[in-house]
Amino acid sequence: MLPTIEWKDDHIIMIDQRKLPEEEIYHKLRTFEAVAEAIEEMIIRGAPAIGIAAAMGIALGYKKLGKDDEEMFLKICKRLSETRPTAKNLFWAIDRMKNLYLSLKNKSFEEKKVALINEALKIEKEDIEMNKKMGEFGSSLIEDGDTILTHCNAGALATGGFGTALGIIRAAHFSGKKIRVFADETRPFLQGARLTTWELVKEGIETYLISDNMAGFFMKKGEITKIVVGADRIVSNGDIANKIGTYSVAVLAKENKIPFYVAAPYSTFDLSLERGDEIPIEERKKEEVYLINGKRIAPEGVKIKNPAFDITPNELISAIITEKGIIYPPYRENIKKIMGEKE
Amino acid sequence: MLPTIEWKDDHIIMIDQRKLPEEEIYHKLRTFEAVAEAIEEMIIRGAPAIGIAAAMGIALGYKKLGKDDEEMFLKICKRLSETRPTAKNLFWAIDRMKNLYLSLKNKSFEEKKVALINEALKIEKEDIEMNKKMGEFGSSLIEDGDTILTHCNAGALATGGFGTALGIIRAAHFSGKKIRVFADETRPFLQGARLTTWELVKEGIETYLISDNMAGFFMKKGEITKIVVGADRIVSNGDIANKIGTYSVAVLAKENKIPFYVAAPYSTFDLSLERGDEIPIEERKKEEVYLINGKRIAPEGVKIKNPAFDITPNELISAIITEKGIIYPPYRENIKKIMGEKE
Repeated sequence: MLPTIEWKDDHIIMIDQRKLPEEEIYHKLRTFEAVAEAIEEMIIRGAPAIGIAAAMGIALGYKKLGKDDEEMFLKICKRLSETRPTAKNLFWAIDRMKNLYLSLKNKSFEEKKVALINEALKIEKEDIEMNKKMGEFGSSLIEDGDTILTHCNAGALATGGFGTALGIIRAAHFSGKKIRVFADETRPFLQGARLTTWELVKEGIETYLISDNMAGFFMKKGEITKIVVGADRIVSNGDIANKIGTYSVAVLAKENKIPFYVAAPYSTFDLSLERGDEIPIEERKKEEVYLINGKRIAPEGVKIKNPAFDITPNELISAIITEKGIIYPPYRENIKKIMGEKE
Repeated sequence: MLPTIEWKDDHIIMIDQRKLPEEEIYHKLRTFEAVAEAIEEMIIRGAPAIGIAAAMGIALGYKKLGKDDEEMFLKICKRLSETRPTAKNLFWAIDRMKNLYLSLKNKSFEEKKVALINEALKIEKEDIEMNKKMGEFGSSLIEDGDTILTHCNAGALATGGFGTALGIIRAAHFSGKKIRVFADETRPFLQGARLTTWELVKEGIETYLISDNMAGFFMKKGEITKIVVGADRIVSNGDIANKIGTYSVAVLAKENKIPFYVAAPYSTFDLSLERGDEIPIEERKKEEVYLINGKRIAPEGVKIKNPAFDITPNELISAIITEKGIIYPPYRENIKKIMGEKE
């Protein structure tokens, strides 16, 4: 398993995902503020992983208070909730920590502290278990000989471990199916080029790196037989938010009649929203687009847009793979059926 | 006008398009072999521009023979024709030079030399004139307030000057229409980020740089109202080859009901081919994908694909803008009607 994040009692360790695969740098984060900044700066990224990071950040921040202080506890939660706006898992994990804390009104600082740490570790452990379940369900959709396109990194690095989309690919590979993977490089942050290929090459899976704008070419040529991506938020009608470029992949999949699958655990679902266009889309720093390795790729005077996510409408999605089973259309009905009990 | 290429009698000057916009480096090319390598290495690129470069390379190579030698002349033509396989303009320009040479059987070396140099210069001059004509026709399709998406660089740098797609944008801008341009960065070579934005910012046109995978997001949001791209080859049925990623843009345009225009002069048309899938697609070096500014973006062990072009089928194209007028579907009929006389 790859070392995405680790709880070390008086600090948290994270591998710097901005530097992979060239450098393996580990950060020791000793305050909740450092954890918040690591999420903002994308030292850690991926919807489930930032949920885990926030939960651990809350546990760490509370522990370091040295005494119970509800106001400060809520401030820590607020700070972590302001790091990134799109992924549901972040708010889900923070709410879970907050609800636990508020349910322990009459307990001591020591008891609350232990409970919060255990909850954060439980969120991490459950995430890995959910990924493995998703892998089992999802790999039933993968056939021997498939060439699977994936976008961004929905792997071990984006989760507690194993991965959502890459968890399905891993499970199919471990079950002996002969598969190939095409990884979109995923500009501007290059998660596909840097992280997905790194994970898959380590697993011994035959992996091809392509530029984002090549995916359509290979779909039209018939070289891609399945598409599997993760998600940052899934709403009631089955619309999803995921890494910028996912929508384009989904439209190209529809045009070329290729199944388009989304893999995500229940912590990604936001049944308080009706439609995808209600999901807030993060606009990130311009530098991510016009600087590559610290060097300008465009002249002064050009304006930049950098939306980090897009919305893929439900009608472009063949199925949503969760740890509770595979959800097919009609999504509004079937998501409620499978995910409703969590409410 | 930008200095794409210039005939200097005993050499040819080219601006190095791999280094723009960070550095403005000019190469003096003194042999046809140097010109061939400049085309291969993409010091010069863009379908019309490489046609001009090949014509000048033939004139230069012939001149440097010092005496008439048909076998060597044909070898020079052959060498230049092997530089890149997809753009029709290259073969069109070489054929034009070859036909001229073969029509001068009884002339002296001096006469043939002068004729070849004049022909190369004429090809360049005609190209600029065609771009301006295209600009006039094309700008009639652009409305005040339009936001135009373009892919790759079909500008002054890709032609003798002025540009095909960017020529239309320039003409619309000069005519006083208020327009904005979104430029796809166009991985792996970044022609959009490096060249298109450079040209447009110099013109004072409001220009936004986006990653290739963001185009769909802005189309779906309704921010893009027109799409204009160039072409490397257009065949009888109206299918086109253009820079990798063009097909994806066209599919997204169809999904979002946005007009998708292609701009190209008659030298881009290849009526000897029936359908786009007959066009040879160049596969370029893997380094272009996995190295950015000399630094790896992906681990060892990953495989790479690097098709430099893709095919956009005619049914995704709203109109083809040429120097002879705007061609609408049905393309097989209307291309023959407008372009037939050249045969």
